[in-house]
Amino acid sequence: MKRILVIGAALLLGLSAQAQQALFGGPQAESPVINPDGTVTFRYQAPKAVRVTVSGDFLPTQKMEFEMNGQKVSYEAPGVGVFREGPNGVWEYTTPNPVPPELYTYTFSVDGTSVIDPNNVYVNRDVASLTSVLLVPQEGARSDLYAIHRVPHGTVSKVWYPSATAGFDRRLTVYTPAGYEDNPKAKYPVLYVLHGIGGDEDAWVTQGRATQILDNLIARGQAKPMIVVFTNGNISEEAAPLENSTGYVRPTMSLPQTMEGTFETAFPEIVKFIDSRYRTVAKKQGRAICGLSMGGFHTLYITLNNPDLFNYSGMFSAAIGTGSEQTAAHKEIYENVDGKLATYFSKKPALLWIGIGSTDFLIQSNNDFRKKLDAAGYPYTYMETDGGHIWRNWRIYLSEFVPLLFK
Amino acid sequence: MKRILVIGAALLLGLSAQAQQALFGGPQAESPVINPDGTVTFRYQAPKAVRVTVSGDFLPTQKMEFEMNGQKVSYEAPGVGVFREGPNGVWEYTTPNPVPPELYTYTFSVDGTSVIDPNNVYVNRDVASLTSVLLVPQEGARSDLYAIHRVPHGTVSKVWYPSATAGFDRRLTVYTPAGYEDNPKAKYPVLYVLHGIGGDEDAWVTQGRATQILDNLIARGQAKPMIVVFTNGNISEEAAPLENSTGYVRPTMSLPQTMEGTFETAFPEIVKFIDSRYRTVAKKQGRAICGLSMGGFHTLYITLNNPDLFNYSGMFSAAIGTGSEQTAAHKEIYENVDGKLATYFSKKPALLWIGIGSTDFLIQSNNDFRKKLDAAGYPYTYMETDGGHIWRNWRIYLSEFVPLLFK
Repeated sequence: MKRILVIGAALLLGLSAQAQQALFGGPQAESPVINPDGTVTFRYQAPKAVRVTVSGDFLPTQKMEFEMNGQKVSYEAPGVGVFREGPNGVWEYTTPNPVPPELYTYTFSVDGTSVIDPNNVYVNRDVASLTSVLLVPQEGARSDLYAIHRVPHGTVSKVWYPSATAGFDRRLTVYTPAGYEDNPKAKYPVLYVLHGIGGDEDAWVTQGRATQILDNLIARGQAKPMIVVFTNGNISEEAAPLENSTGYVRPTMSLPQTMEGTFETAFPEIVKFIDSRYRTVAKKQGRAICGLSMGGFHTLYITLNNPDLFNYSGMFSAAIGTGSEQTAAHKEIYENVDGKLATYFSKKPALLWIGIGSTDFLIQSNNDFRKKLDAAGYPYTYMETDGGHIWRNWRIYLSEFVPLLFK
Repeated sequence: MKRILVIGAALLLGLSAQAQQALFGGPQAESPVINPDGTVTFRYQAPKAVRVTVSGDFLPTQKMEFEMNGQKVSYEAPGVGVFREGPNGVWEYTTPNPVPPELYTYTFSVDGTSVIDPNNVYVNRDVASLTSVLLVPQEGARSDLYAIHRVPHGTVSKVWYPSATAGFDRRLTVYTPAGYEDNPKAKYPVLYVLHGIGGDEDAWVTQGRATQILDNLIARGQAKPMIVVFTNGNISEEAAPLENSTGYVRPTMSLPQTMEGTFETAFPEIVKFIDSRYRTVAKKQGRAICGLSMGGFHTLYITLNNPDLFNYSGMFSAAIGTGSEQTAAHKEIYENVDGKLATYFSKKPALLWIGIGSTDFLIQSNNDFRKKLDAAGYPYTYMETDGGHIWRNWRIYLSEFVPLLFK
């Protein structure tokens, strides 16, 4: 009787027919499972399948190549683990070694078709691809910053600002730290955080776990309470896919106006909006900016073209040297870099921070840029990590950059 | 050369290795496609598969049964469409008829394994199930309310409130209407919106498209600007899965303390928090509450136990009569319903609104409740729609309820 009650109550109160179906369906495979020895087991039920594999960034990487500007560029792709079929058509794969604490993403391939793990509801979208998410937490490990703890939480808001440049309202994600509403006279410094190509105002929050990182660093006393603004660098778009009036389209990386100067030119209107809407420290000493890949490229040029705007700038795997400046609509944004660097450094910014992975396909252009800084004697902070052009590194860079701000 | 540049720039700037892989992979099937004649085509690449089907709420439903309190209860499950295999292992299914404008969810089944459409990144989570989303918009149709238009947008925030009852901070979704920040002296009425079992503070925003409905109704002048608060009715939980310090767990409907009076008892602390944090019309005339299924049950008892709190109450497919009251921790919440109804109606509330689908498995208990109201001569507004216990109906009910508020 009790069981029936539980089923009766649990089952159908508030459920869509889809969920009912999932519930009434046969037993599902448990996946992923973090085993007591630290290895991870993945399972997939597919009685008729011939080959099932998992691809994820917890496996040893494999070298791949592509062509950029006529040159071969190598990069690391995630490794592959091969499943074995067990009873009842449930395929299984266990990692050979314990998986270190980290936030990972993975997909399965079933006879060549890429699918997410149907038993794992934690999913990230990256451009037009969905991936399953695996968080291996451990107290004291860096990935503990990406987990939610019982600490005071900031408020995370989706806010629309009027863009005179675009001609329509555009969406931002805004983090206000715990205590913001309880201290109505306090003013807060602002960090602007920029995504890479194909990303949007959601990317740093979903894939980057940025609001967890902020909550945890602030609660530990390792970062100042600050407002954080996650912009959308695709100036031709209003917002992330499906939050957009263009409606139901497949997300793409080939958006117009992403690396040709329009966004950089329009950036001060975002700063102006934030200073009018929030209680900010509305001066250079209270502003920081950082970004990954395309966002690192944006960060550099927004900083150089507005040398009085930001006291702290962070370039994470910055996409400099790709040649996009040469065909820019706003060429002036990318011209006279040496002169702009001289002006910028003459105003003594508190921090220029550069981070990149040792196998990132952009390391050469970043090394060239650092050589230029070194030759002129300009100060900067540099961090080189293992791995390539991946979110793991960007979460690390944000975790390292944020504690240095507004001291 | 231009193509290479585009690939070079588009490809690797800001992309995870996962996304790179998706991009370097072979051609993917286009799915779903809304055809010029209004039919919809779904595709799935699976060269080795034997049987591929689609299940979705745009197909004719099929009758299913389950047992509740020892009695057989029938409900509608989504229908099934069978794919045919075409060239290159791409399976295809086209609906026999045009699909009317609506927001639908669907999944594929590949040899018995349920998967989402890998070519569609628009995904909803319902408890532990992921489903693909299909929005068929049409100007003038109701589903147009669920689309994003170039109208002023409210701010949608994830906010944590201190729960004395739970003993920890808990998460809310709060919608403040466009204009809230530009009118710093204006006060706004508040609508509280409650989810069903297995849901959380995200459900009405993702599956319910509630913030789009609010934006559009307000922009059309069909609803008053209002604050909307989406609560989390699982009082033992802090927040939606993965926003929770319990970390990486499979979402479940079998949470403790969902329909036994604790949440209803604790509800006034949420109202108090909202009145302290936002510029509200902090009196009965400025407050409304509604909820679906378990949330409709919560709505009824929160209203009856606090007859001076809400002027407008909406029960959407309310999960009354399931027997959960009998084993409640806070039995007093569910006792003396007749007396509480008399007190409530003696205070002349502006609106009690009841909506349910004609084939909902809860229609009998809702009919019984209406008979009780009729017998006592208590006024209420009733809406009966086609279909069962499904999100399509709850979006309709919200769209009908909101324009009636705060007139």
